[in-house]
Amino acid sequence: MDSLRNHAVLLLSCPDRKGIVASVSQFIYEHNGNIVHADQYTDTEKGQFFMRIEWEMNGFDLERQEIPKAFSPLAQHFQIDWRLHFTDDIPNMAIFVSKAPHCLYEILLRHSAGEFAANIKLIISNHPDLSPVAKTFGIPFYVFPINPQTKMTVEKKELALLKEYNTDLIILARYMQILTPQFISHYPNRIINIHHSFLPAFAGSHPYRQARERGVKIIGATSHYVTDKLDAGPIIEQDVIRVTHRDSVEDLISKGRDIEKIVLSRAIKLHLENRILVYGNKTIIFSS
Amino acid sequence: MDSLRNHAVLLLSCPDRKGIVASVSQFIYEHNGNIVHADQYTDTEKGQFFMRIEWEMNGFDLERQEIPKAFSPLAQHFQIDWRLHFTDDIPNMAIFVSKAPHCLYEILLRHSAGEFAANIKLIISNHPDLSPVAKTFGIPFYVFPINPQTKMTVEKKELALLKEYNTDLIILARYMQILTPQFISHYPNRIINIHHSFLPAFAGSHPYRQARERGVKIIGATSHYVTDKLDAGPIIEQDVIRVTHRDSVEDLISKGRDIEKIVLSRAIKLHLENRILVYGNKTIIFSS
Amino acid sequence: MDSLRNHAVLLLSCPDRKGIVASVSQFIYEHNGNIVHADQYTDTEKGQFFMRIEWEMNGFDLERQEIPKAFSPLAQHFQIDWRLHFTDDIPNMAIFVSKAPHCLYEILLRHSAGEFAANIKLIISNHPDLSPVAKTFGIPFYVFPINPQTKMTVEKKELALLKEYNTDLIILARYMQILTPQFISHYPNRIINIHHSFLPAFAGSHPYRQARERGVKIIGATSHYVTDKLDAGPIIEQDVIRVTHRDSVEDLISKGRDIEKIVLSRAIKLHLENRILVYGNKTIIFSS
Amino acid sequence: MDSLRNHAVLLLSCPDRKGIVASVSQFIYEHNGNIVHADQYTDTEKGQFFMRIEWEMNGFDLERQEIPKAFSPLAQHFQIDWRLHFTDDIPNMAIFVSKAPHCLYEILLRHSAGEFAANIKLIISNHPDLSPVAKTFGIPFYVFPINPQTKMTVEKKELALLKEYNTDLIILARYMQILTPQFISHYPNRIINIHHSFLPAFAGSHPYRQARERGVKIIGATSHYVTDKLDAGPIIEQDVIRVTHRDSVEDLISKGRDIEKIVLSRAIKLHLENRILVYGNKTIIFSS
Repeated sequence: MDSLRNHAVLLLSCPDRKGIVASVSQFIYEHNGNIVHADQYTDTEKGQFFMRIEWEMNGFDLERQEIPKAFSPLAQHFQIDWRLHFTDDIPNMAIFVSKAPHCLYEILLRHSAGEFAANIKLIISNHPDLSPVAKTFGIPFYVFPINPQTKMTVEKKELALLKEYNTDLIILARYMQILTPQFISHYPNRIINIHHSFLPAFAGSHPYRQARERGVKIIGATSHYVTDKLDAGPIIEQDVIRVTHRDSVEDLISKGRDIEKIVLSRAIKLHLENRILVYGNKTIIFSS
Repeated sequence: MDSLRNHAVLLLSCPDRKGIVASVSQFIYEHNGNIVHADQYTDTEKGQFFMRIEWEMNGFDLERQEIPKAFSPLAQHFQIDWRLHFTDDIPNMAIFVSKAPHCLYEILLRHSAGEFAANIKLIISNHPDLSPVAKTFGIPFYVFPINPQTKMTVEKKELALLKEYNTDLIILARYMQILTPQFISHYPNRIINIHHSFLPAFAGSHPYRQARERGVKIIGATSHYVTDKLDAGPIIEQDVIRVTHRDSVEDLISKGRDIEKIVLSRAIKLHLENRILVYGNKTIIFSS
Repeated sequence: MDSLRNHAVLLLSCPDRKGIVASVSQFIYEHNGNIVHADQYTDTEKGQFFMRIEWEMNGFDLERQEIPKAFSPLAQHFQIDWRLHFTDDIPNMAIFVSKAPHCLYEILLRHSAGEFAANIKLIISNHPDLSPVAKTFGIPFYVFPINPQTKMTVEKKELALLKEYNTDLIILARYMQILTPQFISHYPNRIINIHHSFLPAFAGSHPYRQARERGVKIIGATSHYVTDKLDAGPIIEQDVIRVTHRDSVEDLISKGRDIEKIVLSRAIKLHLENRILVYGNKTIIFSS
Repeated sequence: MDSLRNHAVLLLSCPDRKGIVASVSQFIYEHNGNIVHADQYTDTEKGQFFMRIEWEMNGFDLERQEIPKAFSPLAQHFQIDWRLHFTDDIPNMAIFVSKAPHCLYEILLRHSAGEFAANIKLIISNHPDLSPVAKTFGIPFYVFPINPQTKMTVEKKELALLKEYNTDLIILARYMQILTPQFISHYPNRIINIHHSFLPAFAGSHPYRQARERGVKIIGATSHYVTDKLDAGPIIEQDVIRVTHRDSVEDLISKGRDIEKIVLSRAIKLHLENRILVYGNKTIIFSS
């Protein structure tokens, strides 16, 4: 898999001006790097430039820890905000679930098929139901029952556990609890949720019931980064499926499962391949 | 075209009980009718039954004006609400437009291609811009400039004109005016609008700007019957198209045009083929 | 689930003439049956009529074994070919696999979620690789290594085993062997395959490589009944996904998995709900 | 519109090696160009590099006619094949039609809406039927009746006419004639056809009839460059639409029209924006 070769991925943004592409690609070339992917976007309204550039570390004459210092003058000159990733730095992922198994299975199966360059370190749930699934795939499973009174205390324990596992990324795979702002603040743009509607339509609870009541002819699913505002974080990916008047709420739930798991999987993959830049409350997706 | 042969189409709804299908199909058979299409739906929650049944009038031994009386005992027995249509009764259609030509052209071209069994009698606009299009297709074009002060007066003139043309159906083909409840009351479930968003997301004005601001990855279009509540009438048809962060509001408008015209066309076709039953604030679509 | 209630489903075809719908629905009504779904189709070219009609057995005054005799005069009168199913008669299903797990998992997970009204009795493979998956779900797993020399002998053993389990339906879930006509003859229209291309394009082996070489912008998957002609049986369901020049053969394989498993699942569901009539080399699908 | 601003677009390919991106972007920067879009692709199997790079001519310190000479040393060094376009160099387009109006109207309407940066200079047909459409849009319309005996002679006249109008690009908008290799050789990769099937399925004539006979559940349309081999040239764009057993050949034709016109329009737009590189018998599409 491409993403498992040793590549560097630089994600950057800065005020738009001439010479950025030339300077950045020159920097890579000078150090003997071979660029394998480059993509850019300019928000002409706001005069902001964004770029993703990926090169082979094989033959590159800087060690990875030397790159920041070497890149620093150029970054200062252009006022560049940047993040550097290496494709053999495999991030640690935690999955939060409640009772529904479809998204969890999908993630575990895609991971088995080599689609996700991540270590799935642990699964956390507020219910014990999916413990056998975790066991099948040999992944530690922790149950934290939760209620409004215990939420703060429980979240602290969860955070401690996540820290213990050096967790880089949290996936809410149909986790039916709202995280507190305090919890979220530890993982800015690193908690990915799947909401079972085509946001911003039908935010909040029971979106399929809402959809049925409104009589829509298409339902959707939305994967987004979690922020303090419920179901209002930066959207990563969405997809839809046709329904008819014949579909009961249960039918919508069943049809919805098929797109929830696919939309969430695509969002995870985009994140793991470092293809997402969050900008304001929106995402820039550098697709392959 | 199938819909131009002389068929009868019966749309009915009644409390669900045994024997409805048998009795209705028996009624048609007794009078020597050949059923060419039948579809039904039961809302099991509310115990309501819905049906669309279509048969050939060729060989049927009742004249069309005799059918209501003959059907009446059966209708009373089952408490049936019903509407009867004949496929050679071509309804008269009026199109309301403002400045955007894409939906108007689409309707006129599909009509030319024989896709719509309707007489397009007139086009009404609050702007003169699309007059040449109407002329090309030989359809009377009326301009009624409108402002908040004149709206009531203008609508009265429009209603008079629509009456003069024996208008059965009104299509709002990107007509950028809100009709008054008084106007709408003359054409219940007979005014079809196209809204340029995936309702209920982004109701109201400037949906593409709203979509851009929210950062959605898919935009949509919704065709619905017009009711007193803005953009909240029974949804007939919806479709969507993918967008990215690169799409400016202008790009969204351009991409949106492609689905607006298709979604509106499908809704018109469903209405003209008498495939729609409005039930509560939702539609039952008996698709072919 | 609707399909688990005790309903009768009658699938029939006969030369088209007046009175069929009336007579069949009258038959059901006379015996106190409540029709919950009815759909029909007429091939006007060939003058053939097709129907699917479903009614509640609860309250029906014929025992299921009495129905054929009672229906017989009507069937003879209209020259009706018919099949009768009961939704609480759960068919026995066998799954054939090779090494790829994605379709197998999809079927087992949907089955767990209650989407398939079938008993998954056994899994047969020409490789041992997927044995742990079978074990997880508690389903007997049989390995039959196969080569051109042993094929006939092996198929006989497989047939014996299938018979032992009273198998009604065989799913080829990415089974990488071609069945002999002799084997197929035991399960006419009861073996469902998933082919990883949009048939009739790219029949035969390595369809993704063929697709890559032709430079198509969309790839597909096709589920069909297996007949003597390779990849040429009646098509049940198809779907597609977009690809680009950037997608390697491996990428196509990965993207393809997502539609293969969905298309196959939809086909299985349609079969299990008795919504498919094979007619010539095509299928009539009475969708819900 | 973006493409009407004065930008330069450089499309290049060369053997893959380090330093290409750096050198090309450096070249643009040295001459004071602001890069607004850059995209690249490497065929790792064949070791070939491809790039599209677009920059603002406003402020660029080379005149457009000076660029080739200035770029030449770099091109030689990297063995670069390249094409240079300017977005204010509006190409001249000819449209070939027969009797079907839908693709022609679509092109003319999109052109009116400002979607195509092209001059539509003339329409050529083998039938007079669409002359009124051409007249409405004020475009010269030429009729060349054609038969097997006259084809060569007629094509010569057509070529002369195309030359007279300085035609850069030919669109076959459902032109029902096969062009000779001799004709095609004058416009390599500059004749775009729309074929009414999902190629390579159903090449040749009557694809909808073929599709109906095979019983497919999805039909498609394919836009490709015309080469000597019928319906086998490099594919630019494809799309599909669902169909059922109920759809007659006429229904397929009607549904197909909706995708034919959209697929052809997308292909034209990609060509006009210089986003297509033909490579072997495939296209590399640098999408926006």
